[in-house]
Amino acid sequence: MTALETRRVILDRVPDGELTVDHFRLDSQPLAQPGPGEVLTRTLYLSVDPVMRKIMVRATEPNGLNGVFGLGAGDPMRGRTVGRVEQSGDSRFTPGDLVLGWGGWQDFAIEKADALLPIAPVPGHPLSVHLGPLGRPGITAWLGIVHTAQVDASDTVLVSSAAGAVGSVAGQLATSRGARVVGVAGGADKCAWLLAHGFDAAVDYKAPDFLEQLERATPEQVSMVYENVGGAILDAALGRMRSEGRIALCGLLDGYQASAGKAFAYRNFGLILDRGLTITGFRIDELSARHSDALTDLRGLVETGRLVATETVTQGLENAPAALVGLLGGRGHGKHLVTIDTTIDR
Amino acid sequence: MTALETRRVILDRVPDGELTVDHFRLDSQPLAQPGPGEVLTRTLYLSVDPVMRKIMVRATEPNGLNGVFGLGAGDPMRGRTVGRVEQSGDSRFTPGDLVLGWGGWQDFAIEKADALLPIAPVPGHPLSVHLGPLGRPGITAWLGIVHTAQVDASDTVLVSSAAGAVGSVAGQLATSRGARVVGVAGGADKCAWLLAHGFDAAVDYKAPDFLEQLERATPEQVSMVYENVGGAILDAALGRMRSEGRIALCGLLDGYQASAGKAFAYRNFGLILDRGLTITGFRIDELSARHSDALTDLRGLVETGRLVATETVTQGLENAPAALVGLLGGRGHGKHLVTIDTTIDR
Repeated sequence: MTALETRRVILDRVPDGELTVDHFRLDSQPLAQPGPGEVLTRTLYLSVDPVMRKIMVRATEPNGLNGVFGLGAGDPMRGRTVGRVEQSGDSRFTPGDLVLGWGGWQDFAIEKADALLPIAPVPGHPLSVHLGPLGRPGITAWLGIVHTAQVDASDTVLVSSAAGAVGSVAGQLATSRGARVVGVAGGADKCAWLLAHGFDAAVDYKAPDFLEQLERATPEQVSMVYENVGGAILDAALGRMRSEGRIALCGLLDGYQASAGKAFAYRNFGLILDRGLTITGFRIDELSARHSDALTDLRGLVETGRLVATETVTQGLENAPAALVGLLGGRGHGKHLVTIDTTIDR
Repeated sequence: MTALETRRVILDRVPDGELTVDHFRLDSQPLAQPGPGEVLTRTLYLSVDPVMRKIMVRATEPNGLNGVFGLGAGDPMRGRTVGRVEQSGDSRFTPGDLVLGWGGWQDFAIEKADALLPIAPVPGHPLSVHLGPLGRPGITAWLGIVHTAQVDASDTVLVSSAAGAVGSVAGQLATSRGARVVGVAGGADKCAWLLAHGFDAAVDYKAPDFLEQLERATPEQVSMVYENVGGAILDAALGRMRSEGRIALCGLLDGYQASAGKAFAYRNFGLILDRGLTITGFRIDELSARHSDALTDLRGLVETGRLVATETVTQGLENAPAALVGLLGGRGHGKHLVTIDTTIDR
């Protein structure tokens, strides 16, 4: 039996500004056997996330993450995966088990059994639902809408990057709680998707009349913002807030592709004071005590069809860099994924 | 009997950028008798506040206040006053009564009796204590420290404009609740005042090593910021926040003297997300249900000497514009006041 090889995607250089596929390279290396407490998994799906760009930082660069989770030059790309157990060094897993893990961008991974979550197929959905509405994007959406902002039927909610993995769930969650929900997205195609999936209005931030569209879509202003983007989109949202409005800050996509040290000047920052607004940044890993509540809620909505997942799927590990570049450039809908081996699933 | 005349300070022109005394003029006009429900008061003290600059807006200028409370060209300067009733058209007041009102920058004012609050001298303090720690600045400090942030002994609190009317009370309130308190102020003189009044450390934002001073003064970082200033000082504070830290936003002094449309680019804005911070803007008039709790607390601290007021007092109505310009330029300590007639008090 020849040794198993795994291809891996490596971050070859840390970008300063816009990320391109040229910042990556593919390598291949032999795989060891899983040791005690370890499991060898075959990657079925890997997750492609905006935050991957954010954590690409040079060692010398100041960053909010203090470098702890940074991706440096030469590092293999990390990330969530849906995998199938091939060999197990841990009594909790046997070959054939399906797991949610952190396999990263590679064909096979040796993972710590402690970090794996067993998953089951959800009828009518691909396994990748565990990387979308029933995974970190879904939990992130739930934490902002339910835990942080406690949205109810009295709210008008504005969601930015509303056709994205997190925003599409956040908007549908807010709708399920009776709120009026307005989505901000780039382009007519995404806006049409929003209107077909329960959003009461959609605003195209790429349109020249973006601000007028936003005003028309929010005749009673906005009481809650689910913010994924920051920059000019958040600035416009601040300008439409009601008194005592609240902003759940989940992402700042707008800044991830910027050169180091570039900062956006918010013209409406003073409205935080003048209108008594509250901005809360929240992080999924700090709120782990609420994750099972979130998943119970989300699973109920997915199973009854009230929460519809949307995916942009790329075939082949070698195309993962292009998938990330496309996501950061605003291409595609919903959760971005790469399939490696889906013989079991599709 | 000749008709009573009152001098008034008028905002002659709305500044674009820095306010100077040339933006004001003095006029004089005859006073009517107070009608039913009105009271004629003689001004003893008038309040000089940073927010007066903020509300000087041209009619065509976009502003968070929507122009409702703006001061335009030709408007008499409004503001809080301590006055003595001279004539009364309302059964609740008789000549000689001391009142807290909204007389504005003039020798005498006709005021609505409904808007007046009877006040009593506080032993050992001038009547102007009702414009400082027992007035709006004190209540504003209390709302941020006690109501919004619920500061306790586990906190390290950073107060900006800490030698100012609001900041000096906010810092002493936080100290009284057991927190470690660090004040930011401009110049060695103000920093010395802070250290003499219970602050654990003082940081001079005008010093070239401001950031290093801030770092040394907060070895365990900062869990709560009482923010009066914004701009570079808030940006530095954001950089020193602990995870889950909270910022009570009470003022943005830094921007009040800026030209219209100028916006500060916060380099550390992303830390709101990365460290799970919460920024809350709060407005004294929206929280009126808590004012009597605040005053009870503040009065106890003032009467027992645990809360020390500091004042910068200017003599004469005609010098009120210079007092405001000086305040905005960072001159003086604590509450800025103008005395008109203090025969009763000092």
